Amino acid sequence: MNKPFEVVVSRSKSVEDHVLEIIEILNHNSNEVDLKGYGFEINKTVDIYNALKDRLKEGITLEEVSIGSETKDRKRISYLLLRIKRSY
Amino acid sequence: MNKPFEVVVSRSKSVEDHVLEIIEILNHNSNEVDLKGYGFEINKTVDIYNALKDRLKEGITLEEVSIGSETKDRKRISYLLLRIKRSY
Ligand SMILES: [Zn+2]
Repeated sequence: MNKPFEVVVSRSKSVEDHVLEIIEILNHNSNEVDLKGYGFEINKTVDIYNALKDRLKEGITLEEVSIGSETKDRKRISYLLLRIKRSY
Repeated sequence: MNKPFEVVVSRSKSVEDHVLEIIEILNHNSNEVDLKGYGFEINKTVDIYNALKDRLKEGITLEEVSIGSETKDRKRISYLLLRIKRSY
């Protein structure tokens, strides 16, 4: 239950799909989720967090927000990473 | 020189336009810039930061990264806020 479970935001999944996926992980797999969105999925990453926060309220805390870039296929792509922790 | 200067990411301006705008502010107006992007501009916000970092290297530090949402015209819109500080 200690290592953060990484969830990469998918272009084809809805915000709601990701919210449900993260709730499942927090319930059954890990008390921390690293939610990571690349490029055009960065704004969706923030939407997912806000929708999850609406749903779980004080049940989660945002441990860390970080940004950066990685090289993929010789192109640099920006990312946003949100570390979400279950509060209790 | 103390209060952060707020820059809201614009749909119509390029990443490069914003980079130059922020460099001007850090040179002449304030040693801190709050770069804020809403909705679809959130991913551009991260691109702007990464392009600025490439340019200024250790000349800037990322003081704070935060996310949240605001209500505009009865719709809730997510945002990403990056507080960028001139190092010296
Ligand atoms: Zn379940």
